[in-house]
Amino acid sequence: MAKFAQRMKTMEKSALAIRNLFGAMNDPEIISFGGGAPAKEALPIDIIREITNEVMRTDKRGVEALQYGNVMGLMDLREAILHELLAPKGVKGKVDNILITNGGLEPINLTCQLYVDPGDVILVESPTFVQAVEIFEMFQAKCIAVDMDDNGMVPEDLEAKILKYKPKMIYVIPTFQNPTGRTLSLDRRQKIAELGSNYDIIILEDDPYRDIRYSGKDLLPIKAFDKTGHTIMANSFSKIFSPGSRLGYVLANDEVTAKLFDAKTATNSHTSTLVQVICAEFFKRGYYPAHLKKICDLYRERRDTMIECIDEFFPKETKRIFPDGGLFTWAELPGGINTTELLIESSTNPEVKVSYVAGESFFAEGGGKGNNCMRISFGGVTPDRIRIGIEKLGNLLSSKL
Amino acid sequence: MAKFAQRMKTMEKSALAIRNLFGAMNDPEIISFGGGAPAKEALPIDIIREITNEVMRTDKRGVEALQYGNVMGLMDLREAILHELLAPKGVKGKVDNILITNGGLEPINLTCQLYVDPGDVILVESPTFVQAVEIFEMFQAKCIAVDMDDNGMVPEDLEAKILKYKPKMIYVIPTFQNPTGRTLSLDRRQKIAELGSNYDIIILEDDPYRDIRYSGKDLLPIKAFDKTGHTIMANSFSKIFSPGSRLGYVLANDEVTAKLFDAKTATNSHTSTLVQVICAEFFKRGYYPAHLKKICDLYRERRDTMIECIDEFFPKETKRIFPDGGLFTWAELPGGINTTELLIESSTNPEVKVSYVAGESFFAEGGGKGNNCMRISFGGVTPDRIRIGIEKLGNLLSSKL
Repeated sequence: MAKFAQRMKTMEKSALAIRNLFGAMNDPEIISFGGGAPAKEALPIDIIREITNEVMRTDKRGVEALQYGNVMGLMDLREAILHELLAPKGVKGKVDNILITNGGLEPINLTCQLYVDPGDVILVESPTFVQAVEIFEMFQAKCIAVDMDDNGMVPEDLEAKILKYKPKMIYVIPTFQNPTGRTLSLDRRQKIAELGSNYDIIILEDDPYRDIRYSGKDLLPIKAFDKTGHTIMANSFSKIFSPGSRLGYVLANDEVTAKLFDAKTATNSHTSTLVQVICAEFFKRGYYPAHLKKICDLYRERRDTMIECIDEFFPKETKRIFPDGGLFTWAELPGGINTTELLIESSTNPEVKVSYVAGESFFAEGGGKGNNCMRISFGGVTPDRIRIGIEKLGNLLSSKL
Repeated sequence: MAKFAQRMKTMEKSALAIRNLFGAMNDPEIISFGGGAPAKEALPIDIIREITNEVMRTDKRGVEALQYGNVMGLMDLREAILHELLAPKGVKGKVDNILITNGGLEPINLTCQLYVDPGDVILVESPTFVQAVEIFEMFQAKCIAVDMDDNGMVPEDLEAKILKYKPKMIYVIPTFQNPTGRTLSLDRRQKIAELGSNYDIIILEDDPYRDIRYSGKDLLPIKAFDKTGHTIMANSFSKIFSPGSRLGYVLANDEVTAKLFDAKTATNSHTSTLVQVICAEFFKRGYYPAHLKKICDLYRERRDTMIECIDEFFPKETKRIFPDGGLFTWAELPGGINTTELLIESSTNPEVKVSYVAGESFFAEGGGKGNNCMRISFGGVTPDRIRIGIEKLGNLLSSKL
């Protein structure tokens, strides 16, 4: 049978890790702290029914919703992004610089189409989002991990690795990072934008959790400090509207946007107009502010319960992160516990039946780094079940010490 | 500013052609035979309103529709494809071998991810679908054109070019081809499948018009003759359901499907679940057969009107194709008329205001080939306006002889 292209080889390891992740999510008896899916209570089902019922008529937006659309995306959805999602966060831009994508991963794929030749280096956080690494490896890039601390990517290590590896791109998730829940501090945001400009490196700022903040103060995105167009901002509607709608967007300068148009055309023409119309109406009809408050209240309670329970039930020497928003926390465990090995027992032992994501898969550098860590998602689990699940998981952990 | 990847250079020419195509479609005063969009009367707006109104409830499919979904796509949409779209056409397969895509172009992009390394040769029809060529060029493939006659790709020329160029892939639109409306004959379908198997070449069979047939007899797809898994079948819901929903699918063997899973994951995770649920319900509730009959009746009248009018109003020596289905016909004009140059006059002269797609852009071989041809789409124009538009265009053509 015909030989696969080279890129299918370079992505094999991360592709396998991701296939394993998907496989682990399907047992309904498990209390799953694994997936990154929003709570089902956070999905605006009634609003969407009302919107479609109203607009799906030939004299309303029905024809527009079902016909071919603009490559860049629906104009009034791009206006909603500009006025309701970007302006309040201190990001200026033009509607023409926003491209609507099929979910929040597609901006990463499209940016790679634009910039990544085989062998190029991409600097990533240590740990980072494993699906982004899969994309980078499909483009035959070499991922180099940059140290993080509780304030995000460490600028000194970043600059040292810029000098050493001459990267094409730096990939950062600045707010409530996946997998750690950490937030990049304001001064580092500015610093990273400047490093991009000074060294002529693309900064891919992936910020899908930014809007679901439960405590602390909003920070300006990296893009707000970008004076040269080197920062490309990617975002998603998965956390604030619906993952199943598969909507995201990318914001870039004129030159980059023109190329994004070409890459999007050659990927899938344009994003579903039907879901764009529904999402645009969600914003135009003013549903967003109340919906956002509702889901932040919901997740804040889950986050607080999760952190309380970890502190109560996990081994005393556990280091965990208190995230100001997003869907995850991250725990570093004591006593040589291997979270990759423990996951099998944790998810299959009938006394436990709790899953999480083992930390190892998030480290692009490999070598077993992070095998004492776990990503724990609180977004999709009710407080009652968080309490039950974390108690069981904590007892299992303690039994290993 | 950071340098773009090599692929953005190799795709520049076709990207420009496509940007020009999009640009020409936006004047509402023009009678447009340019775009390939379905008739607005062919969009099932009322059915979609009814479906969403019914399923968008927490006790129905609302949560499923708005939550993250399966990489391969929604199970019952894949079952509908298998039983209602493939089996009646003589294609056997398993649900597990169907991947749902974001529209009908994405299968082409994903197949390139799997197979195309820079410098690989792809054989295409002469003329062929310009957006497919753009994708091939983004993957830095070299497109070589294969002769066509009224029965489609000519097998003798195809085999000669296989021997000469050692291609990785052959791209074919077998039924009511874009841009010509021609249909590949049954014996050639079998022959192309066999050539793929014998020479170890991927056959990418792109068949989005197949189901909208207005006359003549259904032909088995190339995939029905594939004994080795070399044929990958791509299709779309754009013509039979709605382009704005952006739904398509790809059918391949186990080995290829496993890799398609990885490439899809690294492109955009999965296709919008919301539109998949709506489309699946469209089939499950039995709407498809009556809808298909309705749109075929609608398009048959438009096709017949278009052909009658071309025969009446175009210069006598014009060669035009009578398509048994699909949305286009193709005309080859006499007397040295250059359709690229004429398009400007045709679309801007207030006495004419008629657009089409100039033939030149569909020839991967370039060199001005096809500059006396035009693609004329009848799908989106009512019979009355077809008559007016073709008379005006015919008069303009005659005035040039």
